[in-house]
Amino acid sequence: MSQTLSFSKGHGTGNDFVIIPDADGALDLTDDQIAALCDRRFGIGGDGMLRVVRSEAIPEGREAHIAGAEWFMDYRNADGSAAEMCGNGIRVFARYLADNGWASLDEELRIGTRAGVKTVTRSDRGFEVDLGAWVIEDGDVLVRARGLDVPRPGQGIDVGNPHVVVALSSEAELDALDLTHIPFLDPAPPAGANIEFVVPSDPLVQGGVGAIRMRVFERGVGETLSCGTGVAAAALAVRHWAGPAAPDAWIVDVPGGTLGVRMAEGHVLLSGPASLVFHGEVTLA
Amino acid sequence: MSQTLSFSKGHGTGNDFVIIPDADGALDLTDDQIAALCDRRFGIGGDGMLRVVRSEAIPEGREAHIAGAEWFMDYRNADGSAAEMCGNGIRVFARYLADNGWASLDEELRIGTRAGVKTVTRSDRGFEVDLGAWVIEDGDVLVRARGLDVPRPGQGIDVGNPHVVVALSSEAELDALDLTHIPFLDPAPPAGANIEFVVPSDPLVQGGVGAIRMRVFERGVGETLSCGTGVAAAALAVRHWAGPAAPDAWIVDVPGGTLGVRMAEGHVLLSGPASLVFHGEVTLA
Repeated sequence: MSQTLSFSKGHGTGNDFVIIPDADGALDLTDDQIAALCDRRFGIGGDGMLRVVRSEAIPEGREAHIAGAEWFMDYRNADGSAAEMCGNGIRVFARYLADNGWASLDEELRIGTRAGVKTVTRSDRGFEVDLGAWVIEDGDVLVRARGLDVPRPGQGIDVGNPHVVVALSSEAELDALDLTHIPFLDPAPPAGANIEFVVPSDPLVQGGVGAIRMRVFERGVGETLSCGTGVAAAALAVRHWAGPAAPDAWIVDVPGGTLGVRMAEGHVLLSGPASLVFHGEVTLA
Repeated sequence: MSQTLSFSKGHGTGNDFVIIPDADGALDLTDDQIAALCDRRFGIGGDGMLRVVRSEAIPEGREAHIAGAEWFMDYRNADGSAAEMCGNGIRVFARYLADNGWASLDEELRIGTRAGVKTVTRSDRGFEVDLGAWVIEDGDVLVRARGLDVPRPGQGIDVGNPHVVVALSSEAELDALDLTHIPFLDPAPPAGANIEFVVPSDPLVQGGVGAIRMRVFERGVGETLSCGTGVAAAALAVRHWAGPAAPDAWIVDVPGGTLGVRMAEGHVLLSGPASLVFHGEVTLA
């Protein structure tokens, strides 16, 4: 039986999502259906899907509901598999709730995710999400990538998901990097990692704010225009390298736009734009 | 001033298009606006745009109107530039007219294009378009591509636009081809050419129908899932190589699906599926 769905499409710094409203949790989309929706030529197209569902409507949202998060972000990768969190996706999710009048962002908004309840607020850049605490991993990882003459040391950072951040010496070196092939990590993290290549600006800090440029290779995906948690990891790594005098506020340029990162009370917060681009109806086979 | 447009999205064997209805020719979209609509992450996404306009409503449609084509396909590349014809796009265009009741395909449908009036009919595969006459070019072109050990001879074919077709010896060779980089043509055609790499099936002809598999590199684009005129050129080249006993009916497998080609009365006709995937509204900045 065919089924017609209303949807919206949105993006945060070029990281794009098919948004499916399902307040009452009535939909039961298969992985194949989600993959078909996310296909860029045969479907709607997106890096992933955000299902907008009330926390109380689904078993997975039980903890979020108890914690006072009315809405749960059922985030799926483009292949349909469930994912925990997405730093760009949650801003698009908040934009959707706000633009449709389903939630107010006059105060902070609590959103349930598979990585726990996250808090989103409005900010100068659009929306800011508290990504929680982070972990600076011990020991270097060696990173080999096409376009780099020698392996470079990388810093492992966990921001809810694993990252390895590599400092390059110049914008030219960043531009010359060939990320059409997966970089090698030695030792290889058990579950893989997203890899961020960063170039600190010169001077690094201006007006109390640190600035960096980065490109990212996402595990299982390839190079992307933006990765929210990767942006946070990049700022955390450069701040770590810069030592105790480093600032707590950062701006990070990625190919898809500009994001802000700040550290406060042991938490890292990511801010940036989120846009809804179009609305439509699609019929599932 | 912002402007809200209704649109549909459709594809033919994975060659995908943003379809903008504009019966009265009231829209005046800039190249930048079209490029924004065709952007796969910041816009709707597509290989190109099809504006559906009455021939009599625009100066460019004057000849088509006189020739009895009620509708004109204003086809644009993803960068907004005007293009002449698209063998997959015109089937999607016909599907749009038929599904919206704007035209009947009970008989043949004449559609105005920048390459003249084209005739579309329903067929077993979906829709068939008469691409007109073709030209087999004199002299070989040498083709160098990544994954090929030595340069191969290519056959120039003009089907309204220029193609060079290269025969490979096996499926394995076709699969090993690296089309992430542009192949070199020697001599280089003045306006470039789309390049089709083909593997004839073994046996070539079964039940009176010839069969081939192909991959295509489109000039200015890169490898694509399908190219309608390239499919016609591929069948014409293999038929040319096979000699006088070759059949006039062909099936061509491309990464995005299967198309039919036949030759009749000096014309080449392309048939294949066309689907509308979703409908929506988008606001232009």
